[in-house]
Amino acid sequence: MNIGAIEAGGTKFVCGIGNEHGEIFEKISIPTRNPVETIKDVIAFFDGKEIDRMGIGSFGPIQVNRDQSDYGTILETPKTAWKYFPLLQTIKSYFPKDMPFEVDTDVNAAAFGELKWGAAKGLDSCVYFTVGTGIGAGAVIDGKIVHGLLHPEAGHMFVKRHPKDDFVGSCPYHGDCLEGLAAGTSMKERWGKAGVDIHNEEAWEMEAYYLAQTAINALLTYSPEKIIFGGGVLNHPGLIEKVREQFSKLLNGYIKKDEVIKNVENYIVLPGLGSEAGLKGSLALVL
Amino acid sequence: MNIGAIEAGGTKFVCGIGNEHGEIFEKISIPTRNPVETIKDVIAFFDGKEIDRMGIGSFGPIQVNRDQSDYGTILETPKTAWKYFPLLQTIKSYFPKDMPFEVDTDVNAAAFGELKWGAAKGLDSCVYFTVGTGIGAGAVIDGKIVHGLLHPEAGHMFVKRHPKDDFVGSCPYHGDCLEGLAAGTSMKERWGKAGVDIHNEEAWEMEAYYLAQTAINALLTYSPEKIIFGGGVLNHPGLIEKVREQFSKLLNGYIKKDEVIKNVENYIVLPGLGSEAGLKGSLALVL
Repeated sequence: MNIGAIEAGGTKFVCGIGNEHGEIFEKISIPTRNPVETIKDVIAFFDGKEIDRMGIGSFGPIQVNRDQSDYGTILETPKTAWKYFPLLQTIKSYFPKDMPFEVDTDVNAAAFGELKWGAAKGLDSCVYFTVGTGIGAGAVIDGKIVHGLLHPEAGHMFVKRHPKDDFVGSCPYHGDCLEGLAAGTSMKERWGKAGVDIHNEEAWEMEAYYLAQTAINALLTYSPEKIIFGGGVLNHPGLIEKVREQFSKLLNGYIKKDEVIKNVENYIVLPGLGSEAGLKGSLALVL
Repeated sequence: MNIGAIEAGGTKFVCGIGNEHGEIFEKISIPTRNPVETIKDVIAFFDGKEIDRMGIGSFGPIQVNRDQSDYGTILETPKTAWKYFPLLQTIKSYFPKDMPFEVDTDVNAAAFGELKWGAAKGLDSCVYFTVGTGIGAGAVIDGKIVHGLLHPEAGHMFVKRHPKDDFVGSCPYHGDCLEGLAAGTSMKERWGKAGVDIHNEEAWEMEAYYLAQTAINALLTYSPEKIIFGGGVLNHPGLIEKVREQFSKLLNGYIKKDEVIKNVENYIVLPGLGSEAGLKGSLALVL
């Protein structure tokens, strides 16, 4: 079976063709511009290629409830050109009427891909956080992607402030929510330079302190079998180890499960699918 | 069908007999002592009564995974007499071998009961917080109770501190986690008197600030269709209204759904089943 996959991000759209084993045969990266220009390139990539179905993992907020008439439509977003853009309907119109499509958020797709073929393979639940310019979160519980009222937006949860942190926070909605304190943007504002150029130990201890609370709040709410951290910020060497260390310190033995207490290096992990988690996850949506 | 239900709490065990419509015919409240004395009274209540199945909602942590050999056993708890007590196995031994039993946490049971017959009736998801001496949380997503690695313990999540709060926090594990800042115990320690005797506005504004963050973090992680607050602290007149107010203020329009923006008084609510949420929920577990 040939499966089309689109990871629709705010910076780039990654399109690919693969199969039901999560193998990607070919892919392309298209810079995200306005919807018309971007979708034109997306359609050009798939043009003339045999595909049987298609999965789309998109930046949010997006309608992921299949029962709603606006299923697959981008909702209210600061990316004004994309506000209320009917992403699924537009793409669908270029393909045969009966071809199956699935849409979810890029982070839910990544979580699902990791469960299917990556770091959470063989488990029933996982949470995936991507820490880049912003912080996104996807979750799978009991083998099913979490939707509910909308979809998770756990990047904006509230956490406690590091005692030495007096940065006001960079989130335009909440100021010092998690994203406002720990996303790439906030690191840049707080320290005056991009993450890759930050070499002081204090900055990374602080970052780990916030991501450790992220993991703890995820553990205490979702109770997942695996917590995965991806995104550019996690490329910093040693950060994931620091997160685990602070996690154990802050959790302080509260959840007495070996997975969490003795085996934290297998509980809080980097993505097993690396940078392909989103694309492979989008593909997995439609299986 | 006659269904037995036990709400096994740290202070009292409420036992009841009801039916598949959530009607309770008779019930009894037994003070919680050591396991032997307590279970003796529980069994005496059910003795000679015709019941076909039984649901148990217990204080946690407790093994809720049916596939584990210690299903229904209390895990590591500060209530030392109950540590590793095989609650289900002990009760089961007094009933016919083939009688169906189900065990979950008291708060998961309450969440499930509210979904079945209470404030979240007709929905697929809800989160239930009980704010009393401690803070407990149960969650239902896609019609199923959340378990995963263990079960939710969202009462211990981290939240941001109120700017005027310098109380160190009362949680023996985490100090200033949610429970450490907002449970009845912490109110008592901070203000020097029990919640019922606290009449200063500042105290209740602060409490609402923490519970509003609880609701926001629940919304952003679980994305539930309803958030329910029960427990003794919520008996304070006007508290739920204050929670809604702070919720809207802190969320600041981030999740653009009418349920959350325009209709918050139907989104953050008191239990529909009142003090019977736990007992009726325990009953519902076995349907």
